[in-house]
Amino acid sequence: MTGITYFGKYEGATPKEDLGGKGVSLNMMTKAGLPVPPGFTIWTSECVYFMEHGVWSPELETRVNELIKSVEKDTGKEFGSNSNPLLLSVRSGARVSMPGMMDTVLNLGLNDEAVEGMAKKTKNPRFAYDSFRRFLQMFGDVVMGVEHAKFEKVLDAVKEVIKGYRALIQEETGKEFPQNPKLQLTMAINAVFASWNNPRAIVYRNLNHMGHNWGTAVNVQSMVYGNTGDNSGTGVGFTRDPSTGERVAFGEFLTNAQGEDVVAGIRTPFPLASMAGLSGPWPRVYEELMGIYKRLEEFYKDMVDLEFTIEDGKLYMLQARVGKRTGAAMVRIACELVDEGVIDKKTAMMRIDPPKINELLFENFDPKVSYADKVLAKGLPASPGAAVGQIVFEAEAAVEAKAEKRATILCRPETSPEDIAGMDAAIGVLTARGGLSSHAAVVARGMGKCCVAGCGECRIDEEAGIMTIGGKTFKEGDFISLNGSTGEVIEGKVPTIKPEISGHFGRIMNWSNEFKTLQIRTNADTPEDTKVAVEFGAEGIGLCRTEHMFFQADKISAIREMILAADAKARKVALDKVLPLQQIDFEGIFEALEGRPCTVRLLDPPLHEFLPHDDENQTAMAKQIGCEVEEIKAKVHELSESNPMLGFRGCRLGMIYPEISEMQVTALTQAAIAVEKKGIKVRPEIMIPVVCLPAEVKVLRKVICDRVDAVMEKAGVKIPYQVGTMIELPAACLQADKIAEHAEFFSFGTNDLTQTTLGISRDDAGRFVPTYVRNGHFDRDPFSEIHEETVGELIKIAVTKGRSVRKGMKISLCGEQSSQKSVLFLHKAGLSVVSASPYRIPALRVAAAQAAIICEE
Amino acid sequence: MTGITYFGKYEGATPKEDLGGKGVSLNMMTKAGLPVPPGFTIWTSECVYFMEHGVWSPELETRVNELIKSVEKDTGKEFGSNSNPLLLSVRSGARVSMPGMMDTVLNLGLNDEAVEGMAKKTKNPRFAYDSFRRFLQMFGDVVMGVEHAKFEKVLDAVKEVIKGYRALIQEETGKEFPQNPKLQLTMAINAVFASWNNPRAIVYRNLNHMGHNWGTAVNVQSMVYGNTGDNSGTGVGFTRDPSTGERVAFGEFLTNAQGEDVVAGIRTPFPLASMAGLSGPWPRVYEELMGIYKRLEEFYKDMVDLEFTIEDGKLYMLQARVGKRTGAAMVRIACELVDEGVIDKKTAMMRIDPPKINELLFENFDPKVSYADKVLAKGLPASPGAAVGQIVFEAEAAVEAKAEKRATILCRPETSPEDIAGMDAAIGVLTARGGLSSHAAVVARGMGKCCVAGCGECRIDEEAGIMTIGGKTFKEGDFISLNGSTGEVIEGKVPTIKPEISGHFGRIMNWSNEFKTLQIRTNADTPEDTKVAVEFGAEGIGLCRTEHMFFQADKISAIREMILAADAKARKVALDKVLPLQQIDFEGIFEALEGRPCTVRLLDPPLHEFLPHDDENQTAMAKQIGCEVEEIKAKVHELSESNPMLGFRGCRLGMIYPEISEMQVTALTQAAIAVEKKGIKVRPEIMIPVVCLPAEVKVLRKVICDRVDAVMEKAGVKIPYQVGTMIELPAACLQADKIAEHAEFFSFGTNDLTQTTLGISRDDAGRFVPTYVRNGHFDRDPFSEIHEETVGELIKIAVTKGRSVRKGMKISLCGEQSSQKSVLFLHKAGLSVVSASPYRIPALRVAAAQAAIICEE
Repeated sequence: MTGITYFGKYEGATPKEDLGGKGVSLNMMTKAGLPVPPGFTIWTSECVYFMEHGVWSPELETRVNELIKSVEKDTGKEFGSNSNPLLLSVRSGARVSMPGMMDTVLNLGLNDEAVEGMAKKTKNPRFAYDSFRRFLQMFGDVVMGVEHAKFEKVLDAVKEVIKGYRALIQEETGKEFPQNPKLQLTMAINAVFASWNNPRAIVYRNLNHMGHNWGTAVNVQSMVYGNTGDNSGTGVGFTRDPSTGERVAFGEFLTNAQGEDVVAGIRTPFPLASMAGLSGPWPRVYEELMGIYKRLEEFYKDMVDLEFTIEDGKLYMLQARVGKRTGAAMVRIACELVDEGVIDKKTAMMRIDPPKINELLFENFDPKVSYADKVLAKGLPASPGAAVGQIVFEAEAAVEAKAEKRATILCRPETSPEDIAGMDAAIGVLTARGGLSSHAAVVARGMGKCCVAGCGECRIDEEAGIMTIGGKTFKEGDFISLNGSTGEVIEGKVPTIKPEISGHFGRIMNWSNEFKTLQIRTNADTPEDTKVAVEFGAEGIGLCRTEHMFFQADKISAIREMILAADAKARKVALDKVLPLQQIDFEGIFEALEGRPCTVRLLDPPLHEFLPHDDENQTAMAKQIGCEVEEIKAKVHELSESNPMLGFRGCRLGMIYPEISEMQVTALTQAAIAVEKKGIKVRPEIMIPVVCLPAEVKVLRKVICDRVDAVMEKAGVKIPYQVGTMIELPAACLQADKIAEHAEFFSFGTNDLTQTTLGISRDDAGRFVPTYVRNGHFDRDPFSEIHEETVGELIKIAVTKGRSVRKGMKISLCGEQSSQKSVLFLHKAGLSVVSASPYRIPALRVAAAQAAIICEE
Repeated sequence: MTGITYFGKYEGATPKEDLGGKGVSLNMMTKAGLPVPPGFTIWTSECVYFMEHGVWSPELETRVNELIKSVEKDTGKEFGSNSNPLLLSVRSGARVSMPGMMDTVLNLGLNDEAVEGMAKKTKNPRFAYDSFRRFLQMFGDVVMGVEHAKFEKVLDAVKEVIKGYRALIQEETGKEFPQNPKLQLTMAINAVFASWNNPRAIVYRNLNHMGHNWGTAVNVQSMVYGNTGDNSGTGVGFTRDPSTGERVAFGEFLTNAQGEDVVAGIRTPFPLASMAGLSGPWPRVYEELMGIYKRLEEFYKDMVDLEFTIEDGKLYMLQARVGKRTGAAMVRIACELVDEGVIDKKTAMMRIDPPKINELLFENFDPKVSYADKVLAKGLPASPGAAVGQIVFEAEAAVEAKAEKRATILCRPETSPEDIAGMDAAIGVLTARGGLSSHAAVVARGMGKCCVAGCGECRIDEEAGIMTIGGKTFKEGDFISLNGSTGEVIEGKVPTIKPEISGHFGRIMNWSNEFKTLQIRTNADTPEDTKVAVEFGAEGIGLCRTEHMFFQADKISAIREMILAADAKARKVALDKVLPLQQIDFEGIFEALEGRPCTVRLLDPPLHEFLPHDDENQTAMAKQIGCEVEEIKAKVHELSESNPMLGFRGCRLGMIYPEISEMQVTALTQAAIAVEKKGIKVRPEIMIPVVCLPAEVKVLRKVICDRVDAVMEKAGVKIPYQVGTMIELPAACLQADKIAEHAEFFSFGTNDLTQTTLGISRDDAGRFVPTYVRNGHFDRDPFSEIHEETVGELIKIAVTKGRSVRKGMKISLCGEQSSQKSVLFLHKAGLSVVSASPYRIPALRVAAAQAAIICEE
């Protein structure tokens, strides 16, 4: 069946997949009797067909013509008529909104004769010709591929402009502008289809993890005009404030303008509320709009984002959809919709996008520090948060700075889709033009990035590389600060503070705990990180990497001595120096945990990682240790490995040098005893890394337990502890049953497990994995999300085998691959614990709650 | 139950495991009524108990005493008696023979008083005191740990010697020599137990893949003496010639000597046949022995190796077992036993030890070259084959030379167990003393190593580092040649030729084909290797590594140009230079295959492997290519990887640079067309390496097929071909079903699969894998035998998944892990093809036949 439906007539089961987001809203609003200009949606499946075959599916042309007839009937206009022409818009609309990424053609149906008819009928020749001009420009650009900028140069009286545009199209493409509206429509639909695969759309989909094979729907709709005169206008709105989530009608409009003008940010629009005070049709339109706001919220049971046009005083709805929002607005709206009785807590939880939670953990300006005297100007608070960074004027500069780990503020007159990579790289965005619905504002909010938009006092001279604002001149590299919640632009660096979990955010976090069954722990190696994680709700440490402590200056020289030692005896002498230092580290962490469990991983990396590799440091080390530099060079050479990831590391070190493991567990046990003496419970879980054979666990378990028991016995103390293993090699997954005979718990190290399962070194993946992601061979980078078909399969095997021997054993994951999808997978696979770095804990709690809710249903 | 049985009384189901090899033969011969001195066997389980607990198992002492009583009854002598003492031998005996590796004590039971009684009773005081001397020396060495060499210095009249020995023992150990025979026995048994774990025994077990936890049995047996006078003697024999396999009674003996004298090679013995012509009891003993030879062959249905002693004209059998033999003897005996109707073909096949087949592939002297004038001397043909190498006098020197890839001949007065590592490293062994049953001969035959023993004309001065032979003097590093089949020692290097499959060897190879179901192919990258493999019976190429061709001088510079190329166009220019050269390589290989199939693997290693890494070669390359050396350095740096094994290699190269794959398949297709035009069939199978995702196969299959089809169409030819994949990553195994949708065949690359599954880099394994093998955590190095619990598990998963989609698809292994055990595993797992390097083909054919026979039963 041909995928095409008239607005309001869709009855299928998968509206988003078929119609795209925009098509769904047009269908819904039409059905609900809202004033929507008639039109139809060509389904995404037709785009997919077109991409695969290069031609339309067999019946599509016939069906388009039929539905054009319906539009003609409903509008009383005629497509291709000279006297009463039906003009159409042709817009893309994917499953998931891709603002500004694909193409749109407006005013389609105009030609030399129709424009005359239109001028006559509207009695507004300027409007008619201007519409034709816009159409020519869009069509020439989008459909016929004439560079947009070239049109800007043709500036003359409108009629002359039109002539000039047509000549330009002819000249550039060698083809005449098509006068036949049907041909125009076909070409425009094809152009929209093709725009699905334009480079910026591909980048956007990659950034947002959208399928490249979904295709876009095409919405063909009769035109209404916001630019027919002062009784006309266009606007966008949100049923609540998308920055804060507050329940206030929110929106902006321009009079005598077409919709694209608001989004493009060329003119700065008026706030919606001012409509009520205007003369003409506006107060009535405002009232009508408020009614529509209410009906839309009732329908979507969520905050809605909408577009409207007023043509000669009559309101038309062009689009409505669930609105994008900041993290702060997300939690507030979710909580308030529950309070209003619109949705239940489970639904509210499912509305939370875990990565967006991270915005709430961004630093904010320290309220105790006043920066009032440093404020340079005030723009629109387009996306909240605080940003402090160096000025850059071009997207590329922001990308380069990010690679150097420098924070930047991208300052642009206005942003366009070409700037997306730069916006992603910068930590804040400042624009001179554009409103709260401008490209900069919408995209920054989507990214959870601080943005001040439409700051009119700001003058940017890209050529000269300077920005003048508040009477001062700044050049690239100077520091400024942005307050995305107030719109303030501030000179220099304003001090920031850490966030707290409270208010709506706190409620959401509490609800997470009501639903989730996975325990959430943190990966932390210091008391400081541990404290942060506990504040964010970590229920313990899932991975404490002991070698991170070794890199500290006070330990590294003893560690190096240990590596250079000729025999076990000399090794022990060096290890004895490390022991008390490591014990202090453990004490700090155990105290910060306040009784929560702590999984400690024994030494993991190959020993050569602790040795200096350049002349200078080798000489310094020789001096410090008191040996010849040649000895160090020889050791570095001796220990060097072809593939260190697969080398002499993890438990293999302990198998050959058990004295290292003994030192570590002695320090740990003595620390536990010391902290318990202070009245704080300690629950240590000792973890053996890089296990590939059951025998390794058997042997090292004995080494560990013998030592731990001896230390406790000597102190006359008995602290319960466990010994378990990392599961991070395919071999360990496949022998998990035999390993479980000796291991009390498992923890999946999905970084190494991914490296070995896929045969991809994380450090060397850059040459091909990004291409694989771009081409859809990987849905996402397998180091950021568990590759379920392979790594996930091994995880399932290991869980089943492990628990077949040790019923209900604790099984964790500590590989940072804690995306929403991965957490759902792990929940289903029956894991007990997921662990990640401190700042990921809140998002992880939400994802865990969502997984539990999904599986309950 | 205590593990101990009287000879002839064992009824258990696992005789070898319980009694060890020696115990089995003593039990069997006693049962069969052969003249065996009475005694008993302490089982291996008792050794294991002793090793674990440090004491004997509870009942062992009681049972030993009981069985001593039985021996006393059967011999009419009394243990510990002064007048009629029962003397005992205490010998080790493991499941699998470990000649000379463990300890033995003879004449146990003697003390100051018993020796007097013995002297009186035998009326041969010299014999009695000499026996006591021997006992003291052995006991002092083996049981009490006095260095053997120290005894040699005490040279005086026997009685004085004994005194001296006892004083030495006292002095060295601070303990008195125990006069109590029961205490002597306990100590001797413990010493034999302990000798299971002496360093040379451990090395031997590692070399021979024997379990370290098996333990040794201990055989306690009443002594008989071959050294009571000229009517006594001792000897060893084989029921057939162990060098050639010819059916002739074979053996050697010494008169008035104990058994150890023959094996130690101190005196050169007489051939067995000469016995018949001697006076005294010898002709009768010879006759009796011939009868025993016949009965032993009837019992074992195989060639038997035996030890005997004649005490005062009476023959005693001390040991019988299936005899060790050379590869040549192995195939001849197997064939002739079939011809004699003793065994069937299947049994004969199961008697073939695949690694021993390799001996038959050793080079032999070119029969067309006469070296008669260069023969220096003639020793005993102790182990056949031809060896050409540099003289070394010490085991360590042979080991060092092997590391430098230099071939050596180890020249020793006689060998001892300390020389084993050196014998393993040398390619030939020459001894001045010792017979065909000497340590050198037995061990060399076991290793399939050329050996000339007992070459009396050879004088070795170890101190001076020179050897005089045939009137000439040689120093370390000089070249000599050995003919192990004639015993000739030849000056300089004699030219050698390649072996042929014919005679008995040919019959065994033909029988292999009757039984085996696995197809055997070769891994070969040149026409030369291909020809050798085809002669050895390869049924095609299982792995042709195209990058090996790239390293050839004429291609490497074009390859380097390709790597330095800035874009796809420049890459193509460079690749076009490689194409015709690679085509010629393929043509040669296809011709050599004469219609057999050829699996060609596309480029596999990371590109940096083709670039020079040192200054000198980088400068040379810059000059040759005409670029700055900095450019090359920059590229080397850019391409360097942390873990190249898991890096940008295999099909990942083709995914990013499809032009490389296109060049390779173009060369291959053009070569196939050219060779088919000569009337030789070509069956190319194109293989994609390092696959981790089904998408890679889908994409590259299209790239390959498009190109191959285009080249064939252009030539107007149609040659059937297949496209398949390497399965060498866990991910590929786990997604084998989806991969099989696009792949026509699989080939397991078990090197990489082992590296990734176990997380062990083959290049870096040296720091811990040998220890793991030594400690029994790995049965064998997982790169030489498939680790069945993990890698094997993935293979089974991949076979099941692959064939679930593509019924009966061809599945190969090309990882060189083709041990007998691995081949059995692969046969059971349902593989179609196993592939290995040319010289492994015959052994592989045997292993494949054995696997089929085992599974049939």
